[in-house]
Amino acid sequence: MTIKFEVVKECKKTRARLGKLYTSRGVIDTPVFMPVGTQATVKAMTPRELEDLSIQIILSNSYHLFLRPGHNLITEAGGLHKFMGWKGAILTDSGGFQVFSLEKLNKITDEGVSFNSHIDGSKHFISPEKAMEIQMALDSDIAMAFDECTPYPAGKYQVETAAQRTIQWARRCKEAHHSSSQSLFGIVQGGVFEDLRIENANKLVELDFPGYAIGGLSVGEPKSLMYEILDCTVPCLPNNKPRYLMGVGAPQSILEGIIRGIDMFDCVLPTRNARNGSLLTLSGKLSITNAKYKNDFTPLDNKCQCYTCRNFSRAYLRHLYMSNEILASILGTIHNLYFMSSLMKNIRLALLEDRLLEFKEEFLSNFLS
Amino acid sequence: MTIKFEVVKECKKTRARLGKLYTSRGVIDTPVFMPVGTQATVKAMTPRELEDLSIQIILSNSYHLFLRPGHNLITEAGGLHKFMGWKGAILTDSGGFQVFSLEKLNKITDEGVSFNSHIDGSKHFISPEKAMEIQMALDSDIAMAFDECTPYPAGKYQVETAAQRTIQWARRCKEAHHSSSQSLFGIVQGGVFEDLRIENANKLVELDFPGYAIGGLSVGEPKSLMYEILDCTVPCLPNNKPRYLMGVGAPQSILEGIIRGIDMFDCVLPTRNARNGSLLTLSGKLSITNAKYKNDFTPLDNKCQCYTCRNFSRAYLRHLYMSNEILASILGTIHNLYFMSSLMKNIRLALLEDRLLEFKEEFLSNFLS
Repeated sequence: MTIKFEVVKECKKTRARLGKLYTSRGVIDTPVFMPVGTQATVKAMTPRELEDLSIQIILSNSYHLFLRPGHNLITEAGGLHKFMGWKGAILTDSGGFQVFSLEKLNKITDEGVSFNSHIDGSKHFISPEKAMEIQMALDSDIAMAFDECTPYPAGKYQVETAAQRTIQWARRCKEAHHSSSQSLFGIVQGGVFEDLRIENANKLVELDFPGYAIGGLSVGEPKSLMYEILDCTVPCLPNNKPRYLMGVGAPQSILEGIIRGIDMFDCVLPTRNARNGSLLTLSGKLSITNAKYKNDFTPLDNKCQCYTCRNFSRAYLRHLYMSNEILASILGTIHNLYFMSSLMKNIRLALLEDRLLEFKEEFLSNFLS
Repeated sequence: MTIKFEVVKECKKTRARLGKLYTSRGVIDTPVFMPVGTQATVKAMTPRELEDLSIQIILSNSYHLFLRPGHNLITEAGGLHKFMGWKGAILTDSGGFQVFSLEKLNKITDEGVSFNSHIDGSKHFISPEKAMEIQMALDSDIAMAFDECTPYPAGKYQVETAAQRTIQWARRCKEAHHSSSQSLFGIVQGGVFEDLRIENANKLVELDFPGYAIGGLSVGEPKSLMYEILDCTVPCLPNNKPRYLMGVGAPQSILEGIIRGIDMFDCVLPTRNARNGSLLTLSGKLSITNAKYKNDFTPLDNKCQCYTCRNFSRAYLRHLYMSNEILASILGTIHNLYFMSSLMKNIRLALLEDRLLEFKEEFLSNFLS
């Protein structure tokens, strides 16, 4: 089955909404944060650990899986879910962002993008059609159209060209995409130019996708600019379709995004930061390797009910990080994902109880102080 | 409470015995294999993962914990069990083996050993008294006497001197050790010289320890020589006390050790090999990164009921190892520890059913073929 989206409740004071995204791998409560499982694994987590954390959907990267182990091998395995032993939903990105951000580009044409692998330097070509082939082979629940991302800052002509190409590619993606089990989302581009975003969103909506992403943000622009772009873009997108803000995962940005009508988020930071010892607490980020935690036998966050906080002290966590132990990454990731999961749950509860702005104010007054 | 040991059943054809080791952290069924948790963590495992694997006792290294985070910090934390969140039993080694094998020695005297830290080069001194202080501070269930290990090969004079010093040190350890919650084991040394081993064992037994270890084996000598030393040493040790063969964990050596009357084993190999992709199956070791497993969608071992084998294919495991994913170490370690746990369970069952030699023959005919 393809996805269905239901708006359960709309906020009276903002564009925020509570929703349910129905997939053949279960219902996803929105707004949702999707942890990233780049190489067919959310780093340091077993699938059962993710289930324990009530995670309903993860993101995986087509680009990485295309290069290694190869999308055809994953088809042979019975699809990405079976390959990685994950029963929840999966959204795959198109590879566009990685190709533009990680690789020494050889050539971008209207046809597609040639690039060299970051693993072995081998040459590859990804077109909109190829991106669809890869994602259909992976058999994720949600596939993303192949888009051209522009960096920040970038001139208007460059951004406009990329945005127009993104529309052409979105059309080709739609034509090439045929799957009864996968839904294809379109991606709005247009950099930080309001007129380009609006034009791009309108053209994309004409193509009629079951969901829309906003790409090319959180690439270095000031936060205020990102929020302005959301303010002008979201109203162009249909109310009855899910909206996904790509690559955003900082708690304050998630809150600002939700208020502006976003339903889905993803970001590597909660998991990557966890591996580097930067841990999320209600009072903000805590750098656990700091010497002041050496003899601190209290939990990381005494209000947190995650496995890590229920069983281990800051002193023990610090010891694990200082000793480069794998368990540091495991316990840190459990905690940060639990934090994100709880944050989203609390946001949804606040939405249900008509107190989202109050929740935001209270949360940020502690988190950013 | 200190430990109590009960021989439940003796093998009629060999020196093997089925036993129970009672500790304040639960009963340990022997023969037992103890996974190694060097730095207060069994690498890549959460304590709940270890509990799932039915592990009753782990080993931790005094030397490493003395250097980092420091034994006094662990006392402050409430002891090693509380510090690392492990409810099962813990045996700590004395640091002797590490000081002799890892460090650039400064000086060995009858007083003790001076050495430089492998972490920061700082100077340290460990004496029998210091080794007791460290282990009492850690509050492990079983502490080991501070001994002098000799390498293989080593001349008889060198080995004899070290063995005699080990007895002097064992006496000093006993005098310095005072704990109502910890039991102190003595260690037999004497290299590969039968007469030295017998003399050393007899002297150690005069000191009357609640358990005895055989140290200084599996350090490079031929297996046959190790078995000969066990054959002559074990009969010198009392029947009603547990016997521990240090640093041995290869399945075939464990079986040979058990037949010669050994009750306890430890080794880093099952966990270290797991992180390097060398995985234990009933048919022997399997190197999962081998290209032939690229498209192999069968479980690692289709007779194995561990979490890894029930949920993931060889192709997926290979992908994780090739991609240097943390999950590779996690799933590999779960499997190898499950394998060791099952092996010991099957050995105990065979002992109970009077078919240990038949079990050994059958197991080795598959494992070594």
